[in-house]
Amino acid sequence: MNTDTTIVAIATPPGMGAIAVIRLSGNLAISIVDSVFVSNSKSKKLSKQKAYTIHYGSIVDGNRVIDDVLVSIFKAPHSYTGENIAEVSCHGSVVIQQQLLELFVRQGAQMAKPGEFTLRAFLNGKLDLSQAEAIADLIASTSETARRVAMHQMRGGFSNKLAELREQLLKFTSLIELELDFADEDVEFANRNDLVALINSILAEINKLASSFSLGNAIKSGIPVAIVGKPNVGKSTLLNRLLNEEKAIVSEIAGTTRDTIEDTIHLNGLNFRFIDTAGLRQTTNEIESIGVKRALNKIEQARIILYLVDAQEEKETILNEVNKIAKKITDSQKLIVLVNKEDKSDSNHVAPVIDELNARNILTIATSAKFGQNIEELQQKLVELGKVDMPENEDVIVTNVRHYNALINTRKSLEEVLKGIHNNISEEFLSIDIREAINYLGEITGEISNEEVLGFIFSKFCIGK
Amino acid sequence: MNTDTTIVAIATPPGMGAIAVIRLSGNLAISIVDSVFVSNSKSKKLSKQKAYTIHYGSIVDGNRVIDDVLVSIFKAPHSYTGENIAEVSCHGSVVIQQQLLELFVRQGAQMAKPGEFTLRAFLNGKLDLSQAEAIADLIASTSETARRVAMHQMRGGFSNKLAELREQLLKFTSLIELELDFADEDVEFANRNDLVALINSILAEINKLASSFSLGNAIKSGIPVAIVGKPNVGKSTLLNRLLNEEKAIVSEIAGTTRDTIEDTIHLNGLNFRFIDTAGLRQTTNEIESIGVKRALNKIEQARIILYLVDAQEEKETILNEVNKIAKKITDSQKLIVLVNKEDKSDSNHVAPVIDELNARNILTIATSAKFGQNIEELQQKLVELGKVDMPENEDVIVTNVRHYNALINTRKSLEEVLKGIHNNISEEFLSIDIREAINYLGEITGEISNEEVLGFIFSKFCIGK
Repeated sequence: MNTDTTIVAIATPPGMGAIAVIRLSGNLAISIVDSVFVSNSKSKKLSKQKAYTIHYGSIVDGNRVIDDVLVSIFKAPHSYTGENIAEVSCHGSVVIQQQLLELFVRQGAQMAKPGEFTLRAFLNGKLDLSQAEAIADLIASTSETARRVAMHQMRGGFSNKLAELREQLLKFTSLIELELDFADEDVEFANRNDLVALINSILAEINKLASSFSLGNAIKSGIPVAIVGKPNVGKSTLLNRLLNEEKAIVSEIAGTTRDTIEDTIHLNGLNFRFIDTAGLRQTTNEIESIGVKRALNKIEQARIILYLVDAQEEKETILNEVNKIAKKITDSQKLIVLVNKEDKSDSNHVAPVIDELNARNILTIATSAKFGQNIEELQQKLVELGKVDMPENEDVIVTNVRHYNALINTRKSLEEVLKGIHNNISEEFLSIDIREAINYLGEITGEISNEEVLGFIFSKFCIGK
Repeated sequence: MNTDTTIVAIATPPGMGAIAVIRLSGNLAISIVDSVFVSNSKSKKLSKQKAYTIHYGSIVDGNRVIDDVLVSIFKAPHSYTGENIAEVSCHGSVVIQQQLLELFVRQGAQMAKPGEFTLRAFLNGKLDLSQAEAIADLIASTSETARRVAMHQMRGGFSNKLAELREQLLKFTSLIELELDFADEDVEFANRNDLVALINSILAEINKLASSFSLGNAIKSGIPVAIVGKPNVGKSTLLNRLLNEEKAIVSEIAGTTRDTIEDTIHLNGLNFRFIDTAGLRQTTNEIESIGVKRALNKIEQARIILYLVDAQEEKETILNEVNKIAKKITDSQKLIVLVNKEDKSDSNHVAPVIDELNARNILTIATSAKFGQNIEELQQKLVELGKVDMPENEDVIVTNVRHYNALINTRKSLEEVLKGIHNNISEEFLSIDIREAINYLGEITGEISNEEVLGFIFSKFCIGK
């Protein structure tokens, strides 16, 4: 990983806007911009300016003025990357962005790889690995809850927790390693009962963190919702209704165009992600061949299941159907039965069905996906069910599969330690097992890392961060 | 137009990016950000900071930290709008952008209307109207030539030209108005022959400017190209070939995603816009019903006509067809005949056709749109023909229909003045006609303007500029 170079990238979203920002980081960041910068007071040199200042001027390519810009100056080590940074704020034309980028490359900068600015910040000790990853999550966050969890992690919430656990283990392992030095004397600096107690309390913490991952994943990717039911019951109409209502809301907020994530809706700070809807949106009359197996598979992956029945069916048929589905729902899942096409049915027919289902403690709403009847009520229920196990402000939630795997590995190592104590193994082997647990914990925050892992993590970032 | 308020908008392109910038302008711009800004040195007040400085801290909504940000400070009158400006650079998540926007609105800012920042810059005398319009063109520019022309206009090239013409007229009209004061004495301060000479030279300038509009329009919207020919000759295949080759090139430039403009290609700093291709792209076998009339209409609008013939046809048939079309081409238009489907024909058949057409001074290329044969040669020819009448660096080009209309009106008034001098009308009426011409010129740069015109002009801007 060569950090002697100066890197450049467009930092703002792609496309046209009022302004765009081109960011350079590295030893030569300021002098590269300087070499093509002309200000009104012609003798002004950016490299002579103070950090945290802004300078108006033009970027020129020979005699050709590319744009009038503002340049912000940051100096090592007091910058995002810990290196010299120049940020060039230009008119947000795509041609200008491209020409500036090409000019800076010609002047000696290199195109930044995805996440390379943040990688440099990590390598320069400005943040740890879990904080760096939180920045990618923060940028990608499309719901308030995802933003909050990522922000907490970026500000070191998760890192502090792990540092605490690591420190406790380190203290013990150094005592054990001290015993090694006095191996002949058969002393015990580290009380084994205390060690067992400590490991059990750490295991409890780790279990709590690991079990937050399923929630963390739902926060990051959206709470998985399955829409199921027999063919022709209105599933695709319901999906389109939910998606379109959101589009209408989003477009009301001027100035914010949200990258619409296929088949995801955003309600009260939560994202809901509809599972496997590819078949649903193609046609309004989805094909029978989708089959029972696929429907069951969808249910398994979901936290919330929207089960649609046709209000025109006989009461007993509906009750039987719902009974069957209710048996498949696990404790961590929520079921909402939608008695759909209520517009086509008689309220004298629908009401008793609802009453009967409610009596069986099954959440039921009479809807007409076609005419938007009770869709608002459905949205409220989704938010209610989605919110149930959302974290408190200061809870640490694991959202990252890499962290989850490291936690699971830590747990395995600690269980080995417990087994070893029980079997009265030598200090040497005990120490090795504890060190292994410490290393796994260190992987999360990047105390322990290698180029391959770093390459993989930062390749998932966007360019310019 | 109320400029007492403080306005806010997202200034960077919509969507997700490494960073986004929220811009506030107005008396309260800095104090509104101050009210929700917390820095490490808790007592730091943004309003106490110097202009052109950058400050790191958090934006908080009560106890909730929305994001860690950088705030740039600009103070009236030394800012883009001439007002106080605060620019908040945040992580480019759509949720964060939206939450910051909402927070600033709650703290007293108003959502900016399209172009409102630039409108304020104009009202505060930071730039004239034609310069303000150039900023919108600059941002929207998707080719090097469009960027250059807009940049020249933004930096005052057009304004200076007009100011010169206006000043000359003003000098004369004040002399004539002086004669009015001495009406009884029959003096002549303004020599009528000199006035005629001046007006003729101004008319020559205005004609030059007005005639640049057709070119200016082509620069701004792309050089109009018509693809015509009989059904099934490969027109849609050619269009797709040209469009796809561009997509491949554009996607190679990392970090720059160009908003693809439907049916426009970008070659060597020029944009080419294909006219009326709606029918072409729907099917590969376009329908006969498009008809001759529509094809002729397309030819009329185009600067470059790509006429396709089928290489498999008889030589005489092709020559007759091309003859007919060549007669419809005007002097300002360019024709390229493409002998297409050359892959399906014999080179012994194609070569004599090409030779014969070349002998008649008709630019001809044998192509296979399907297999991409000679498409590069076609692209080179497009650039050659497109470049012929492109402006030199310092030429003033009229790209705006509003300016064009004002120039035409100026011309009419000046012609009235000439007629008046010829008919020896009174100083009073002469002065009125010259004043009218002066006013029309003043409309372009905004010396003469009204709310309705301003509202119309700025409504076409993007929000945040």
